[in-house]
Amino acid sequence: MRDVSIIGIGQTKVDEHWDRSLRHLAGDAVLMAMRDAGIETADALYVGNMLSGLLTGQEHLGALIADFVGLRGIEAVKVEAACGSGAAALRMAYGAVAGGLHDFAVVCGVEKMTDTVNAETTTGLVMAADADYESIHGVTFVSINALLMRRYMFEYGVKHEDFAEFTVNAHRNAAGNPNAMFRNKVTAEQFGRARMIADPINLLDSSAIGDGAAAVVICPSSIAREYGNGQAVRIRASSMATDAVAVHDRSDPLWLSAVEVSAHKAYQQAGVGPREIDLFEVHDAFTIMTALSLEASGFAERGKGAWLAKAGEITREGRIPICTMGGLKARGHPVGATGVYQVVEISQQLRGDAGANQLPDARLGMAQNIGGSGATVITHILEAHA
Amino acid sequence: MRDVSIIGIGQTKVDEHWDRSLRHLAGDAVLMAMRDAGIETADALYVGNMLSGLLTGQEHLGALIADFVGLRGIEAVKVEAACGSGAAALRMAYGAVAGGLHDFAVVCGVEKMTDTVNAETTTGLVMAADADYESIHGVTFVSINALLMRRYMFEYGVKHEDFAEFTVNAHRNAAGNPNAMFRNKVTAEQFGRARMIADPINLLDSSAIGDGAAAVVICPSSIAREYGNGQAVRIRASSMATDAVAVHDRSDPLWLSAVEVSAHKAYQQAGVGPREIDLFEVHDAFTIMTALSLEASGFAERGKGAWLAKAGEITREGRIPICTMGGLKARGHPVGATGVYQVVEISQQLRGDAGANQLPDARLGMAQNIGGSGATVITHILEAHA
Repeated sequence: MRDVSIIGIGQTKVDEHWDRSLRHLAGDAVLMAMRDAGIETADALYVGNMLSGLLTGQEHLGALIADFVGLRGIEAVKVEAACGSGAAALRMAYGAVAGGLHDFAVVCGVEKMTDTVNAETTTGLVMAADADYESIHGVTFVSINALLMRRYMFEYGVKHEDFAEFTVNAHRNAAGNPNAMFRNKVTAEQFGRARMIADPINLLDSSAIGDGAAAVVICPSSIAREYGNGQAVRIRASSMATDAVAVHDRSDPLWLSAVEVSAHKAYQQAGVGPREIDLFEVHDAFTIMTALSLEASGFAERGKGAWLAKAGEITREGRIPICTMGGLKARGHPVGATGVYQVVEISQQLRGDAGANQLPDARLGMAQNIGGSGATVITHILEAHA
Repeated sequence: MRDVSIIGIGQTKVDEHWDRSLRHLAGDAVLMAMRDAGIETADALYVGNMLSGLLTGQEHLGALIADFVGLRGIEAVKVEAACGSGAAALRMAYGAVAGGLHDFAVVCGVEKMTDTVNAETTTGLVMAADADYESIHGVTFVSINALLMRRYMFEYGVKHEDFAEFTVNAHRNAAGNPNAMFRNKVTAEQFGRARMIADPINLLDSSAIGDGAAAVVICPSSIAREYGNGQAVRIRASSMATDAVAVHDRSDPLWLSAVEVSAHKAYQQAGVGPREIDLFEVHDAFTIMTALSLEASGFAERGKGAWLAKAGEITREGRIPICTMGGLKARGHPVGATGVYQVVEISQQLRGDAGANQLPDARLGMAQNIGGSGATVITHILEAHA
């Protein structure tokens, strides 16, 4: 199979875009990525999206967005894997280009979560969980994570305040990202005082939903230098793994086995380990997911994810910087778009385009996008072209 | 890229399965296909589905179904392209196996359309159209097709009764298919008397929605003979094309350009023309779509699609048999599953497993699945292994 590189990136600010429809947001990001790549057409479009049907009354986003951005006629589909839809779309595109089906593929993650049509956002988000065995009992998506967090605190003797640094770090980094939804700094004290959402998860444990779109253009690495500004980013690994959707069906709810498998496969493909990773865009939908992901990805021992944060290791100056542009928590979490935002942000870091948040010597970045409470996990390892 | 073959097929009856949930239907079809192939595991699962979120409150079908059929952990996603979702999922799987990403991939098309949760089916189906520029004006999906049919009849001097033979043929063939929803025969006279749905489309111009699932297992052709009963079916071509979603955005609404492009690409890949095709599973969601598809695929001249039917050319004894197991009209149209049903049925014909409906010398079959009113078109050409 062929090596694949990212030759163009684009993103909108994550926000309540009441003046922009879903197709406009997607169009903004796709056209930006195509301009960045210096291409005027493409072979295929892969759209990552979870909720367009329920929230905006529109499915069939592949053809819709392809036409809107001037690519009428090309192959185009929507890919859905709950909050992992964005990276799942990249995974499909990666396979198609690596395998030789296409040369130039556009990936767009897009979600429009304000202005809903058929149901409220909470009804939409819980569709990432098991409708027949979880949601039917009245749990929401946040309350499933709350059960996990409560159990984690009990099992490992961790206090709620121990998670504070995840949020403080995310907001500190969002302050330097013009595309972030929340650029205000947050202190550990504010974290402790935030209002309760689903005990023990409070407002500042939770990422914010929003409207937004992000896009990348990929092509074979062999010709990548001819496009964009010669700053192509190589996809060193792409992997996907799944687990039971219902948390109660897992033998160990506190170990995200799909994270472990997906990360392990990615390390294997790239021929590296967690120590070689210079930054990690983790799926910090809730602080508990950040801790569990750091552990199952091999960055912290079991039960010690939060300690990594307390020790200052996750800041831009730390051993493994995470959420370098604000993460889901502070950049915002337009669910089906998030996985593509993560990849765009790592590309910014590896290209030296991260502005105020630029890491000095980042060479390898890992993006990990999660659907549900760990049921679908897609991991990509990206490398700056030498 | 590698040649790819279908080594296992499975399907449920299309029906109002009030006693089977979406995951059970999918499980029935997937396990049947895996047993047929003689495999116990697979590398990836691609689920084609359009409406699970809106109608059953469940997204995230990839991980959900993978786990349910005993494949917990493997790569799994949902692919959506409106009523073309099933074949779009096969297209993704084909690319992954042809390109070398996976060796054994399972494709499942599934739709559960009775027992709805968040909205009615009509609200769901119109999401295949353009929400901002079509549906917002109150048109339903059937009324968009009615506008096309009325224009077609006006432009080409075709009468409603001229479409009768499409429906008569579909029901005649469904009578021999135990998995078909409507096995009753229908006469041209009954067709003319059926109650009006959206003038000029009446009940018997329209395919029936239903619950159902179909599945196939694919692998590289080089090892296909080692699986199943040695009756593998080769995928000679796979192609996908798109068009504007809103019909009013097309320069010629009566010419399905995505059908033309998709079919042309498929002919090119297979090195054949429409004359070499022995059977055609056409996307007969409405009789007007059948006529338009036959024309843009090269089986009839412009405006002459219905004449092909009147001349008896579409029956099992005719020049180009269509809907050989009942088609969308009489087998039933569980929208996101339909594209996989078409491929399963062609496989039955090419393997000699079509029972009462067996064509004597079928060697090349073409399946064409359409999303929306021609906005996404996926064409596959299948061949019996020599």
